[in-house]
This record gives sequence, C-alpha cells and structure tokens, in this order.
Amino acid sequence: MNKSYLNFRTDMADERIDIYKRVHNLSEIDGVIVKSTDIDNVKVTTVDITNENGEKALSKKMGTYITIESLNIEYLSEDEKQILISKVAEQIKLLVKDDHKSIMVVGLGNMYVTPDALGPKVVKYLDITRHLLKFAKEYVDINTREVSAISPGVLGTTGIETSEIIESVTKKVKPDIVIVIDSLASQSVHRVGKSIQLSNMGIVPGAGVKNKRVGINQDTLKIPVIAIGVPTVVDMATITNEAIDKLLENSKKEIDKFNNENINDKHSNSIFSLLNEDNRYSMIANTLDAENYIVTPKEIDEIIDKMSEVLASSINSISRI
Amino acid sequence: MNKSYLNFRTDMADERIDIYKRVHNLSEIDGVIVKSTDIDNVKVTTVDITNENGEKALSKKMGTYITIESLNIEYLSEDEKQILISKVAEQIKLLVKDDHKSIMVVGLGNMYVTPDALGPKVVKYLDITRHLLKFAKEYVDINTREVSAISPGVLGTTGIETSEIIESVTKKVKPDIVIVIDSLASQSVHRVGKSIQLSNMGIVPGAGVKNKRVGINQDTLKIPVIAIGVPTVVDMATITNEAIDKLLENSKKEIDKFNNENINDKHSNSIFSLLNEDNRYSMIANTLDAENYIVTPKEIDEIIDKMSEVLASSINSISRI
Amino acid sequence: MNKSYLNFRTDMADERIDIYKRVHNLSEIDGVIVKSTDIDNVKVTTVDITNENGEKALSKKMGTYITIESLNIEYLSEDEKQILISKVAEQIKLLVKDDHKSIMVVGLGNMYVTPDALGPKVVKYLDITRHLLKFAKEYVDINTREVSAISPGVLGTTGIETSEIIESVTKKVKPDIVIVIDSLASQSVHRVGKSIQLSNMGIVPGAGVKNKRVGINQDTLKIPVIAIGVPTVVDMATITNEAIDKLLENSKKEIDKFNNENINDKHSNSIFSLLNEDNRYSMIANTLDAENYIVTPKEIDEIIDKMSEVLASSINSISRI
Amino acid sequence: MNKSYLNFRTDMADERIDIYKRVHNLSEIDGVIVKSTDIDNVKVTTVDITNENGEKALSKKMGTYITIESLNIEYLSEDEKQILISKVAEQIKLLVKDDHKSIMVVGLGNMYVTPDALGPKVVKYLDITRHLLKFAKEYVDINTREVSAISPGVLGTTGIETSEIIESVTKKVKPDIVIVIDSLASQSVHRVGKSIQLSNMGIVPGAGVKNKRVGINQDTLKIPVIAIGVPTVVDMATITNEAIDKLLENSKKEIDKFNNENINDKHSNSIFSLLNEDNRYSMIANTLDAENYIVTPKEIDEIIDKMSEVLASSINSISRI
Repeated sequence: MNKSYLNFRTDMADERIDIYKRVHNLSEIDGVIVKSTDIDNVKVTTVDITNENGEKALSKKMGTYITIESLNIEYLSEDEKQILISKVAEQIKLLVKDDHKSIMVVGLGNMYVTPDALGPKVVKYLDITRHLLKFAKEYVDINTREVSAISPGVLGTTGIETSEIIESVTKKVKPDIVIVIDSLASQSVHRVGKSIQLSNMGIVPGAGVKNKRVGINQDTLKIPVIAIGVPTVVDMATITNEAIDKLLENSKKEIDKFNNENINDKHSNSIFSLLNEDNRYSMIANTLDAENYIVTPKEIDEIIDKMSEVLASSINSISRI
Repeated sequence: MNKSYLNFRTDMADERIDIYKRVHNLSEIDGVIVKSTDIDNVKVTTVDITNENGEKALSKKMGTYITIESLNIEYLSEDEKQILISKVAEQIKLLVKDDHKSIMVVGLGNMYVTPDALGPKVVKYLDITRHLLKFAKEYVDINTREVSAISPGVLGTTGIETSEIIESVTKKVKPDIVIVIDSLASQSVHRVGKSIQLSNMGIVPGAGVKNKRVGINQDTLKIPVIAIGVPTVVDMATITNEAIDKLLENSKKEIDKFNNENINDKHSNSIFSLLNEDNRYSMIANTLDAENYIVTPKEIDEIIDKMSEVLASSINSISRI
Repeated sequence: MNKSYLNFRTDMADERIDIYKRVHNLSEIDGVIVKSTDIDNVKVTTVDITNENGEKALSKKMGTYITIESLNIEYLSEDEKQILISKVAEQIKLLVKDDHKSIMVVGLGNMYVTPDALGPKVVKYLDITRHLLKFAKEYVDINTREVSAISPGVLGTTGIETSEIIESVTKKVKPDIVIVIDSLASQSVHRVGKSIQLSNMGIVPGAGVKNKRVGINQDTLKIPVIAIGVPTVVDMATITNEAIDKLLENSKKEIDKFNNENINDKHSNSIFSLLNEDNRYSMIANTLDAENYIVTPKEIDEIIDKMSEVLASSINSISRI
Repeated sequence: MNKSYLNFRTDMADERIDIYKRVHNLSEIDGVIVKSTDIDNVKVTTVDITNENGEKALSKKMGTYITIESLNIEYLSEDEKQILISKVAEQIKLLVKDDHKSIMVVGLGNMYVTPDALGPKVVKYLDITRHLLKFAKEYVDINTREVSAISPGVLGTTGIETSEIIESVTKKVKPDIVIVIDSLASQSVHRVGKSIQLSNMGIVPGAGVKNKRVGINQDTLKIPVIAIGVPTVVDMATITNEAIDKLLENSKKEIDKFNNENINDKHSNSIFSLLNEDNRYSMIANTLDAENYIVTPKEIDEIIDKMSEVLASSINSISRI
C-alpha cells in the first residue's frame, strides 16, 4: 500500500474520495456522505464530511463541499447558461441562510492577469445594495438583502496580505456572511472552464496561482465564509505529470511484463524511479521552474468573461431574502 | 462687489487666488504665499496658506497646494515625459519626509470608467515593496522605503464608503503616510491632460466625478495624507457656462453699450439674469441633468494611460530613502 | 420663415421631419411615409423617402430610415434586453433579404477610444461562419448564412481611408450585402444609450466622432449596404447650444415681452444675435475647440458593452436563412 | 544516425543549426553563415542562408534570419529597455532599405486573446504618417517615411483568411515593404518574454497559436515582407516533452548503464520507445488534446504590454529616411 498517495495533490473533495477509496479498497468512507445529481448536463456532487474520520480520510475539515460541472462554458447557449446560473444559485442558497441579511462578496485575484481576474470580474457584475439601503432606502424593495463587495488585490500588487485587508474591512462593515470568489489551479486540464466548487469552509490557503498564506474562513474572520472556487489554470508540473501518466498507461503492458521479468534488477529500478508518481511530481516541479508558468485553455479570456457573468448572476439572484 | 464670486467653483488654489485678488482688487493676500517656476515647459506653482486669513480668503485649510502644468501629456516626447516625471517626483519628495519610512498609496476611482480609472492604474504600475521587506528582506536594498497600495473601488461598486475601507486598512497596515491619487473634475477643459495637483491636506470631499462624502485626510486617518489630483473630466454645467462666458465676451461691446443705454429697463434686466454668472450655473445644472454626463478630451483613454505612468514613475522614484 | 432652419444639424430622419413640418407648417410631406409603433417600451419609427420631393425636404436620399428607441440600455432587465434584441433583429430582417446569402459585417471605429469602440465590439461578439462553411461544411447547419466581419480601424490609427480598406476586402470576399456598424454623435444627450438607427442607405460621411470623408454605401461598394448607427457621444457645441435653448425657454416669457416692446431696438437685436440658433452654433463651435472634446453619459463604458451585445445578438439571430 | 532528428520542431534558425551540426557532426554548414554579438546583455545572432545546400540543411529558404535575445523583458530597467529598442531598430534598419519609402505594418493575431494580442498592440503604439503625408503634408517633416498599419484579425473572428485581407489592402495602399508582426509558439519556455526574431522571408505558415494556412511573404504579396516574430506561448506537447527530456537527462547515468547492460533486452527496448524523442512528441500531442491549451509565463499580460512597446518604438525610430 503506497501511503504517499494520500498526499493528495487535488483540492477537489470528490477526487480525494475516489483516491482514498481506491487506495484503501473501500466502497464507502465513514464520516463522508456523497450525493450526486446529473440533470440538464449539469452535474452537482455534494460531499458532506460529518466526523473526524471523514476529516482524516480526506484531509479536509468537517463541512460541505459542492462541485458543479457543466459543459464547456464558452459553448453554452443562452438557455443552457440560464440553467447553469439557476443551479449555481440553488447551491449558494443552500449555504447562505435567510438570516444572513447582509453579504460581503470578496473577489480574490489579480485583475491584470487574465486567468486570475475571475474574482474582481464577478464583483464588477454584482448588484450592490448596501449603499442604497443606507442612503436611499425609499428606492429599494423591502426584502432586499444587503450586498457589499471588495476586490482586495493580491500580495504582489498591494504588499498587504489579502486576509489582512478582508479582516479589516469585514470588522468595519460587519456583514453576516462573506462569499469569497477565487480562481483555482486544477489538477486536470479537463476541469478548466467546466467546473465550479462551493464550500462553507472558506478558502484553503496555498491553492491556486497565488501564494495565499493565511486562510480566509470562519476561524480568521469570525463570521461564516462561503468559498466559490473556479479552476482556471493547470500548473505545469501537474500537466507534465498527467501526460507521463497517460504515456505510461499506453505502454502499460510492456512495463508490466518488464517489471515481472526484471523484478530484482537494480538498474531498471533506478530508472523507473522517474516513472514513480511520488518522486516524479517534485522532480518535474524542480526541473522546470514550473511555478512561473501557467497552462490555460486557449479561450481563457472568454472563459473568464462567461464564468464571471454566471457567478455574478447566481449571486444577484439571491439578493432578495 | 459681487460677494458670490467667492463661492469658488474651482478647486485649484491658484485659480482661487486670481479670483480673490480680482474681486477684492488686491495684489497680495495676507497668509497666502505663492511661488512659481516655469522651466522646460513645466510650470510649478506652490501656494502656501499660512494663517487664518489665508484660510478664509481661499476657503482652504492651511497647508501646501502645488499645481504642476505641462504641455498636453499625450504629445510629450520620451524625453519630455522623463522631465515631467522628475519634476513631479521632486514635488512629492518635498511632501514625503525621510522619516516617512512606509507609504501606502491609495488609488481612488472606478477602474471600469475610463476617466475615473486613474487611481487604480497608478497602483498597477507601482513598485510594491512591503511584502518583500516582510518576507524576503535579503533580496531588497537596505534603503528601500516600504510601499504598499490599495484600490478601494467606489461606493457604487462596493456599497462601502471609500473612506471606511481606507481607514480600516491603514489601521491594520499602519503606514507613516498615505498618498491618495484621484481624478478630478476640472473647471476648464484646458486643464485636462495637462495638470497635476498635489497637496498635503488630503482630498477635498465632493470633488471630481464621484460623490465622496467623507474626507480622506489627517483628521480622519490620523496620519499625514498627501493628495495627488489630476483633472480628467469637465462637468457639463461648467463647460456650458464657460461657453456662454466666451460668447458674451465676444459680444461684450454690444452688451456694454446696451447696458449703458437701458440701465433701468426692467425686462432687459430679467433677461440678463440668465447671463449673470451666479444664477446661471445652477440654472444650467438644473436644466440639463448635468451630473449624469461628463466632458472629456477625445484622447481620454490615452491621457489616462500616460498620466498613470507619469505618476507611478514619480512615486517609484522616491522608493529609496 | 427662417430658411436656415433647414441646415439640419441632426442626422435622424424623424427629427428632420419634425423640423421640416414645423418650419413649413405642414402636417404631411409628399414623398415621405412615416410609420411608428410603440410596444413593450420599444418605439420603432420607420421613415420611407419615396420620391425626389421627399429627398429634397429631408436632404436625404430615397430609402428606408428606422429609429429604434428603448429605455436606458444600462438599466434593462435580462427580459427587456431580449425583447429589444428581437425588435432590432426584426428590423434588420426587413433590410437583409433571404437571397443575401452572405453578409459581411464592418465594425467601424477606434477600439481604444471607449465611445468609438462600438463597431469593433459588435464584431467581437458575432457568430462568424464563413470559414466554417468553407473549411468545415459538414459541421454546419445547411441553412447557415455566410457571415464574415472586419474591424478596419480608423484613419488616425491606420493611415488608410476606412472606405479603401472596406472596398478592397469586399472585392475579395464578395459578400451579397454589407452591414456597417458605427457610433454616432447625437444632437441630444437624451438619445445616447437609448436609440439605434438603421438604414439601407449606408453611412452618411462626416457623421460621428470621426472624420470619414468617403461614403460607405451601394454607390461606393457596388453591393447593398445597411448601416446601423448608435449615438454614443454628443458634441460639445451641440450640448452647449441645447443648454442655451433650455435656458432661453425658461426665460421665454420675459424675452417675448422684451422683444415685443423693443422690436426696433438696434442694440438688443445685436445682443440677441447670440441667442439666434443659426449663428450661435458656429460661434460656440469656434469659441470652444469643441471638436476635440466629447460629452458622454458617465456610464459610457457599460452602455457600449451592453449595446454591442444587443447588436451582435440581433445580427446573430439572422444567421440562418 | 537518426535522420528524424531533422524533422525540426523549432522555427528558430539558430536552433536548427545546432541540431544539424550535432546530428551530422559538423562544425560548419556550407551555405549557412552565422554571426553573433553579445553586448549590454543583448545577444544578436544573424543567420544568412546563401545557397541551396544551406536551404536543405535548415529546411528554410535563402534569406536572413535574426534572433535578438535579452533578459526577461518584464524586469528591464528603463535604460535597459531603451538599449533593447535601439538594437531592435538597428536590425530592422538592416532589412528596411532607404528606398522603401512607404511601409505597411500588419499586426497579426487576436487582440482578445492575451498572448496572441502582440501584433494588434504594436499597431496601437505606432506613429502613423500616411494620412498626414496625404492630407496635411505641410505639418510633416520632409523626410518622414510613409507608415500605415492594419490589424486584420484572425480567421476565427473574421471568417476571412488573413492573407486575403492583407493582399487586398496592400494592392490598394501599395506600400514598398510590409512588416508583419506575430506572436509565435516557442519550443522552449525560456524563450518567452526574452527573444525577438526578424527575417526578410515573411511568416512561415502554420507557426504559432493560430492556423495560418497561406504564407505572407514576397511570393504572395509581390513586395518585400519583413517578419517580426515573438515567442509568447509554448505548446503543451513541447513543454511536456521538454520536461521528460530533462527528467531523462537527470537520470542519464543510470539509463546509460542500463542500456549498456541490457542492450538486447526486447522488453526494455519497447519501454524506452516512450522515451524516444521521435515517437514521443506525437504520442504526447495525441494523448493530451494539446493544441487546445497554451503554456505562458504568469506575467504574460505584462510581457505583451512591454514587448509591444519595444517593437513599436523600434519601428517608430525608423520613421525618417
């Protein structure tokens, strides 16, 4: 049993479950409840981690983790887009309660770096109501939820930890709940432009293109935090790794045969160390200066535009209580 | 003597001096010191208001107000641009002292509205050092000043008073001094793309395209605040007003003659009420819904780009103590 | 009768009719047929000029001129936007015949100048099919109309007359019909963001922000040309003029009275020359260097975005024959 | 001798020479002259292919191929940038002769896809003179070269072959020489943001992110064509390939040893087929749908901005004869 498989390199709860089950040869995990629907080409997978065993198994805190998968967002028709928006809104509604009368949306990321601009772009399209409720109450529907929003920038362009800015501003504005939007680095090219993750557990630090050292969650902000994460890039080491996996799979028979026949051959073992997944990832990451490069679909500019619109419309649709 | 002339509609200290002197027929104002240089096509006018009389005369608080005027920024050669940068840097250096070891730059304005995007664009081009000094001190020159920056957005897109965001973040980051960048509404089309104002007195609320109710200055932030303001738009009522002024001037002789001959004519007086500057401005502003429209030079996109570069380069040049 | 009123300064056929009728005290004009509908807050006015008398009366060539007016486009709901799109599509369908099997869309304007970027932005959102029909016919519906598009830029950024580029490319591509999109200078602030003009007579040279010397129409391109024009700016002289009109209207009674009583007064006549609409416009235009400035609504960035989407969606909806 | 090594996958003349020499164990190639300078951190390599042997050896037509390499463009100081500009200008001057009195610059690429926007962005920053020489000759220096420019878009957004648009417009404008700017797919991540290629042989079809079927060169346009190409992306298959190369190199000793000891082992040979460069590239390209993804440095937005400025300034500096 190769324990190191459990150094998950994916942040997706559903993928972690698959890996854990495979490695431990289980069909279910105690403390992990998975539900899934697939209607109108939108697949929604909800993972609830309900006890410490579940936490340990998936190396994720107790909470709800939702993955919404659609067809390529850049090819959706207007109607399909509206369906996706309503599905995302439905899931957000499950996490934002009616007594969360004021929301602050935080658009993380660097608006000048295309695949990292998702957060700020969502903020751009939001229907902001806080100032209206404060200064022009008579013009606003009585059931309007208070919505405010900020785009705090990234450490490299502000010099300030993003979590510090958010903490300062939430202390002042005192929203009932925070929705954090961020772009993520995916483990697979096939997630980009097709999936949206939601969670009530905040943003896991260190994920994505950026270096975010401090978590943005209920522990740090003292109010509930919903995270909406969208894979927009694939890191270069991951993709190289994935390519080698597939190459190896294609040559699997020969390798199996070879391994059987040369089981004790010292040299071949040393060669195949490079084919071993555990060592390989860090070898690749070191060899290339992988962290300085990003892999995106060619249509990334369009994907970011459309995804921002979908997320903003979804959030706008809960603006009445 | 028409007292109402002193309802200055200009925010430029130098223009207020001209008006005050003219109205009161003075050659100097007690408590107001003006110095001016004009070298290499860059004119620098420094107004120091030094006592209460100066304060009253100009309706501005004691402090230093600097206006830098250049040729049209979109036509400057590379060399002329470098000269302008060095002149602006020189003036900033007079306001930022050596013991201001940490600066926070605040780029006011809405980055999605071309003539209001100046502040956020300056922030984009800044050399940020705070995080390097904190996390990678060994790679940074020992004399590096700590520079951080935020673009807080505008009330309409955040729902939060800009001053509240700035106050929260400065409390956390604790810079020695804040530099606020903002676009201004000019009183004259001939200022746009040609002038930069600096002051150590913060931002005067209500100026510019936006509604900023709360001042951003030493009183509210409890640390020194330098304001850099750049005229990028002219409000529509002002321009209409200015046009009528010029039309009238062109017809001045006839009008003078007329006035002399019809001095007691009730009807003509009532007509000319519309030509009277005091009533006219508000009549125009009411007639047109002037506040919803902006006047800019055709080249505003380019002006904003170049002006941002000039300001950012100027601030970057003081990044060593 | 003031003949000079007929130096129309508006390009809108419906406005010219109003002026002509008023000046000549007519209720109908021979050779001019006007139809108008106003449903779902979208008003469609169709002016057909059917003979030489109509041509002379309106100083416009025989042809169809359509004005579509909606509420402020930046405040339309998703549903209202869809209604507007369908109405615009309906009017385009009346001008593009079924046997126009191939369309070339030309997006005029400078994409780097916000209010002039409409044409290029429409092109960005179009469903282009010409290359698919040529290189991947098997993947395309059999009734797909051939759509190609170019954004030829403006004289100032290409050094080439826009009409020359269009002529060269249409000669090569040989579309059955050309649709030209352009931003216009409106005579009234109240048209901007609210109206769309269509015509089968091409683009009237010299209109709008730009200097377009050569017409883009059936005469020059030898194929039918549909022009879609959207007011995005108001020229500064016009707005000043309009402001003075309103000021005068507000003071109308006094002026009427005054005129009655001073009818032969030489001086007052000379004063009022400045209030006379004919002289005044050119006086204003000369006084201000008005052509270097533009007036736009504050929300112009958003108006251009939404208007581009509406026009592109309308054109996309006729992409099947 | 592995002949297939000569299926060069690099478009860089200097890299092809290295490969050819290595494979054929030569120190010089008949018909290929290489000169190189490296001053002020800018390396200029000029490859002249002078006869048919040179053509065959490098699979490139007779002509001049220049590679300019600098430090990372996003970290150049203002002074270093000016040096780079002057070096690029110097090389352009060697290709554009004094009797080329009129230049047309063609900015290839899709301005809405960040790494493909280089061409259009260069055009944006050019000093255009053709219209001035035509309509305002009195305001222009007598030695001004005629400069015009177009950004023809890409097949996917116009539906028209780019070469068709260029051909049509050059026939009309009749420039003496065309300069084509394009972004390229590099074979190595280490070229992106650091190198510029020039050639008097036009654009090699099929290179880069786009599918350009028809060449843009003297054969097709009937006038001299200078191509300026800048690597802005790395294709995913290349990068994976490069990663495996490096991994293998790191494990070289073991593999060499292994190969020596198991020289006739059937199975090991079949395994190592996956490590063989020739098969591997196409295996990778097939396994991943590599052509839909791009690899860029994280700073690609900034690289494109700075590179456009460098190229435009270089071209602007030859605008006088």
